[in-house]
Amino acid sequence: MTQHTDHIQANELQYRTLLQEELQAAQSLMLKSHSNLPAGVTQALACIINSGGKRLRPALVLLSAHLCHADLERALPVAAAVEMLHTATLIHDDLIDHALVRRGTRTLNAQWPPSATVLAGDLAFAWSADLMTRGKNLSITKHFAQTLATICYGELSQMFKGRGAIPTMEEYHERIFAKTASLFALATEAGPLLASSPPAEIENLRRFGELLGTAFQIADDVLDFMGDEATLGKPIGSDLRQGLVTLPLLYYLEEHPADRRIQALAQAPPDEAQLQALIADLRSSHAAARAMSTAEGYIQEALDILQPYPPSPYRAALEEIAVFTTRRRY
Amino acid sequence: MTQHTDHIQANELQYRTLLQEELQAAQSLMLKSHSNLPAGVTQALACIINSGGKRLRPALVLLSAHLCHADLERALPVAAAVEMLHTATLIHDDLIDHALVRRGTRTLNAQWPPSATVLAGDLAFAWSADLMTRGKNLSITKHFAQTLATICYGELSQMFKGRGAIPTMEEYHERIFAKTASLFALATEAGPLLASSPPAEIENLRRFGELLGTAFQIADDVLDFMGDEATLGKPIGSDLRQGLVTLPLLYYLEEHPADRRIQALAQAPPDEAQLQALIADLRSSHAAARAMSTAEGYIQEALDILQPYPPSPYRAALEEIAVFTTRRRY
Repeated sequence: MTQHTDHIQANELQYRTLLQEELQAAQSLMLKSHSNLPAGVTQALACIINSGGKRLRPALVLLSAHLCHADLERALPVAAAVEMLHTATLIHDDLIDHALVRRGTRTLNAQWPPSATVLAGDLAFAWSADLMTRGKNLSITKHFAQTLATICYGELSQMFKGRGAIPTMEEYHERIFAKTASLFALATEAGPLLASSPPAEIENLRRFGELLGTAFQIADDVLDFMGDEATLGKPIGSDLRQGLVTLPLLYYLEEHPADRRIQALAQAPPDEAQLQALIADLRSSHAAARAMSTAEGYIQEALDILQPYPPSPYRAALEEIAVFTTRRRY
Repeated sequence: MTQHTDHIQANELQYRTLLQEELQAAQSLMLKSHSNLPAGVTQALACIINSGGKRLRPALVLLSAHLCHADLERALPVAAAVEMLHTATLIHDDLIDHALVRRGTRTLNAQWPPSATVLAGDLAFAWSADLMTRGKNLSITKHFAQTLATICYGELSQMFKGRGAIPTMEEYHERIFAKTASLFALATEAGPLLASSPPAEIENLRRFGELLGTAFQIADDVLDFMGDEATLGKPIGSDLRQGLVTLPLLYYLEEHPADRRIQALAQAPPDEAQLQALIADLRSSHAAARAMSTAEGYIQEALDILQPYPPSPYRAALEEIAVFTTRRRY
């Protein structure tokens, strides 16, 4: 497999320089949402917003807007809204998963009581909804609400299914659509929606985001046991500890049908020694390479969608992000 | 004081019959939001939605829509959205306050782990945002997002201030605006917003809702120690146990400046004997009557706003609700 030879660093990607000012403007919009709050709250939320991550989602909004010649005045708050929605879901997710570290910094729930963390997440939802309305486009606000519903629905379904069953391929794909691909799809359809592009173009760019998000999540699932803890900014094996059976594990199971550990993991959390042994076996199997090759298939399909667009720095930046999703280390 | 002599029952109010079909349609829209969810989730959420309460907020949306001759096709989902937003905030509030009973039925957090309750509240937010967009009016979706932000902001501020200080009158009013009046204001401005009424009319009807909500919350604060537990559907003295210093307590303090118990209550929860003694003293003071008279002043101002409208069953129903807010027992 190619993972160890041709990694791409997110901060070397073209969108970082191409969109530098616009991403900065979107971040300012996110920070401006909260005035008048108690100082401790403002500080903690600003810290989360500034810790930032790769800003892939707002970059996708802005690049799709450029690609379709949408009004940038409207695309900027929508980019901020998509990233704020992502932030809001992370605040509640970290609370639910008892995660203490995210992007190398302490999570809100590591600093605050659960009650304040619930409300801070709710406030971030409210801000993202408010930013979204500044796009002045009813379809986007509608898709925004439906995306949030999809995300919550996916998590609730998973929670109520509980541990025990190994998911089918279809269930795995439903889960990662809800968890990741739905928000990527919202980001890339934002441009054509704002530009009032023809329905087929909106559908194509939405599909582009969905494919990217699917590949991105598969890569994430692989990094959970192939990644490097320091680069990743979070502990290795988090999914395994939670009993999450992801695509590489499904492939591992096909490769080793007699190995009962995947079923056991789905039923109860493994102890640390079992976990480390499983990680070692996963690393030496073909599971990761096969999952990455599936992800690369999605990326190829995504790149084909961009083909008809005339060459431009924005198309190039989108292509580069697409390739990056499967060649990243964090 | 008049409270014990001329109570009004919510189910005797005109809006119940006048809007019977429309409120039923709004409820159907709320229930239809959730398909495909795990059966346990659907059932629990349907139970909360059907337990319903007085449906004052959707009734205010519908009555303001009739008053301004707005399109009812758009007003119905907005009415459902406002009630769903109210439901979402109650789900998270009950989790935060560890409340086990609401409207005489068990809260979600009494049945589910906190993680599932957080997500169910998020899902209800998503549904309310989705229903709101069906009003096809950008101003309403914007005000919706800002109202949610105001509600969260109010709760977070209060939480970070913590116990200790007795609020000023201004702080008390800020708090009840965030907690209650802001959503009433959204409900009554929905009609003129949907009807594209002149800005002055939108502002007037918004103010009508704000006055109603303010009076409603003051009445709530009084019922906390004057009410009857069985009628109220929740325990007496909840606010006092939480150290919430409300308007009647501020008035009690003016009447009894040497009584140190209000300050003590703001600092630490009273034990049960202290609580019962305080409730007895509050009941025999003028605090409740004075607070209700303040609330009635707001209602008079609200009724004046309706004066210019020609007589109609909708105006009459709004006037009746206004009067009801201060003459209710639950």
